[in-house]
Amino acid sequence: MSRPAVGFVGLGAMGFGMATHLVKEGYPVHGFDVFPASVERFKAAGGIPASSLKESAQGKHYYICMVASAPQVQSVLFGDDGIVSALPQDATLILCSTVPASYAQSVASELQSCGRGDIQFIDAPVSGGAKRAGDGTLSIMAGATDAALEKGKFLLETMSDANKLYLVPGGIGAGSNMKMVHQVLAGIHILGASEAMGFAAQLGLDAVKTAEAIKKSDSWTWMHENRLQRMLDEDWHPGASALTIILKDVGIITTSARENQFPTPLCSTAEQVYLSALLQEFGRMDDSSMVRQYYSQPITKVNSSKSDEESAAALRSVLDVMQLTNLVAAAEAIAFAKYLKVDLKQFYTLVSDAAGSSRQFMTLGLEMIEGKVGKNSESVDQAINRLQKAVQKARDLHCPLHLGNATMNVLLMAKRAGLGADGSTSVVKMFGF
Amino acid sequence: MSRPAVGFVGLGAMGFGMATHLVKEGYPVHGFDVFPASVERFKAAGGIPASSLKESAQGKHYYICMVASAPQVQSVLFGDDGIVSALPQDATLILCSTVPASYAQSVASELQSCGRGDIQFIDAPVSGGAKRAGDGTLSIMAGATDAALEKGKFLLETMSDANKLYLVPGGIGAGSNMKMVHQVLAGIHILGASEAMGFAAQLGLDAVKTAEAIKKSDSWTWMHENRLQRMLDEDWHPGASALTIILKDVGIITTSARENQFPTPLCSTAEQVYLSALLQEFGRMDDSSMVRQYYSQPITKVNSSKSDEESAAALRSVLDVMQLTNLVAAAEAIAFAKYLKVDLKQFYTLVSDAAGSSRQFMTLGLEMIEGKVGKNSESVDQAINRLQKAVQKARDLHCPLHLGNATMNVLLMAKRAGLGADGSTSVVKMFGF
Repeated sequence: MSRPAVGFVGLGAMGFGMATHLVKEGYPVHGFDVFPASVERFKAAGGIPASSLKESAQGKHYYICMVASAPQVQSVLFGDDGIVSALPQDATLILCSTVPASYAQSVASELQSCGRGDIQFIDAPVSGGAKRAGDGTLSIMAGATDAALEKGKFLLETMSDANKLYLVPGGIGAGSNMKMVHQVLAGIHILGASEAMGFAAQLGLDAVKTAEAIKKSDSWTWMHENRLQRMLDEDWHPGASALTIILKDVGIITTSARENQFPTPLCSTAEQVYLSALLQEFGRMDDSSMVRQYYSQPITKVNSSKSDEESAAALRSVLDVMQLTNLVAAAEAIAFAKYLKVDLKQFYTLVSDAAGSSRQFMTLGLEMIEGKVGKNSESVDQAINRLQKAVQKARDLHCPLHLGNATMNVLLMAKRAGLGADGSTSVVKMFGF
Repeated sequence: MSRPAVGFVGLGAMGFGMATHLVKEGYPVHGFDVFPASVERFKAAGGIPASSLKESAQGKHYYICMVASAPQVQSVLFGDDGIVSALPQDATLILCSTVPASYAQSVASELQSCGRGDIQFIDAPVSGGAKRAGDGTLSIMAGATDAALEKGKFLLETMSDANKLYLVPGGIGAGSNMKMVHQVLAGIHILGASEAMGFAAQLGLDAVKTAEAIKKSDSWTWMHENRLQRMLDEDWHPGASALTIILKDVGIITTSARENQFPTPLCSTAEQVYLSALLQEFGRMDDSSMVRQYYSQPITKVNSSKSDEESAAALRSVLDVMQLTNLVAAAEAIAFAKYLKVDLKQFYTLVSDAAGSSRQFMTLGLEMIEGKVGKNSESVDQAINRLQKAVQKARDLHCPLHLGNATMNVLLMAKRAGLGADGSTSVVKMFGF
């Protein structure tokens, strides 16, 4: 079966994997990047180098855009000698970059207003990291007209895992919104992993044992499990997930939240810590380096001299902070998703098998989605009592606990709003749920 | 007129000023400190050195305790060979250390339970800095039984400014609570001063001109005016107000807030930034060094190349962030004060003339105290709209804006709670006011 030619721009870590996977699958892929070295590398991997944006687009009935940000997308699509003016009639254009939904919608409008309404445009952000990009097993969240999806689906299927191509109802912007509400969880849990391990170190707990306990507990997150080894190894310079990457996603969330006048207290708190770390030159390091914001030495150097009983009590504090942070994170993400009219069942399915997953989301988050708010057995008051002890321990140790404190204040506001005796899932009501 | 002998413990920056002022006023002051050098210095200034705690207390009908923290107070009062067992019958004991109200109350109980209910005990934290301590013009917030106040008042009057001795109704603990709710404002405004000046630097604004504009505006705080010169000079090592000092006070606030299950989102945010700075070895530096958490160079080195119009727009963002942060700070402090049954009129009078003062507290804070909540002309929605633009500018510059974002989230929660169209002072309702 002959494969159509595909144009591709943005051969960074993710884009390179996606484009070379298409090459492996037999597609003639014409790749362009602003860095000539990336184009050379792509050529060495079997791709067809394009010497300009225009060349990458001319005559290509399928085009994939994977540059890093909305301003870059704007420039490559609509700038002088850009992609849009070079694409042939009725071409299919797939935007895989992570951008605000409002920006994806503006691309659709601009295609119309510049006379290229013929182009079939798909808003299809991806998730899963460079390895899965190269394996063609990404998660893809695609929103578009049915006609556009019909045309582009075979490429989306080639790049994604069979179970992880989400055709998101709602048209252009819906894919971006789906990715964004997922990233609310990812953005909080990445810092949460560091907060838990840094707090554990301050408490004098063994890092590996703590991580094992977290993994088996209600406090588990995908991010904690995934980032742990890099945190232990302090293997930060290869930048598998540079701080700037999650910071960009979190910036899309908080910007969009402000546009929608929706509160995101935990995600905003995480963003501020990331920005502080950026100021301390952590930008290009792996995001697991955030543990340094909590503990100034490698966490593997902690020498635990605690009795089993003391260790168990200290561990309980770490688990409590993490579990309740994850609960409020789930509330924040689910309430924001509902506000944006994201399909909550699809959101749940997606998160279950993705980097934003947590045990709290899977259990209490599901109850929120199913409308069983406030029906769980632990009350807001009981949650506050548990968290209070843990937060006080951190304070006594002079350990920052950014998310734990932000969580505490959301729970306390819920109490002041009269929700103290209700189940702790009713904290979602603080987001107008 | 002959002056009675006074025992004194705690000859640090504040205590030394207080004790030597009493010496100047003709009192024979028997001073002790755990650091022999401090006792020597006190002797050189005309004080009577005590060689032990016991010696400082034996036969003294008046005793002033000015050590740094509750654990230290506990140790000097009730430890082996401590003050309480050495004081004569019916002595007056004035505790000027800043401690949680619950701790001050525990001292009163322990005096009873150890058989020293005869001691007249006064809970009398002070404020105003080392210079005013030495001049005898401190602010003092004193709570006790009428009988105790009657006996100790002449000493409180000697150490305080004529207009700044607050006899706080409510007995033991009331003085500490009054100081604590004042420090809610101080703790937020200290970081706020740095946040405003750091944000201004990131915006490319001239530091001195920005500060002049803040001084004349609705965004003014006493802390901003007071800390400005040290921030410009980067004169941080003498430690006029070391980070650890405000961190201690803020710790008392957040611990007490948790005990009372009361939310303090802004004060907690400030605390987390202070704790992060502590981890970066800023502990002994002056708290004006917090500007480094927002801008990595001296703010005086900013070279403004903006047009007058651009500068005016950028300045507006700084003023908006600071003003709305101060509004929510006022709401947080006033609501917490009311919750603790602090006399709100006395609180207002005290703040007006103290380090926690802000233009917002003086105007919109007064409306909250007077029960005119939500009656001011700007709505929550309008406040959000202004803040949104400023916060987005900071984000675009990658400038952390810890308090601005925390403020934004409280306002957005107020909107989600249905208060959007009400006056912005109704944000105080988020604290159960």
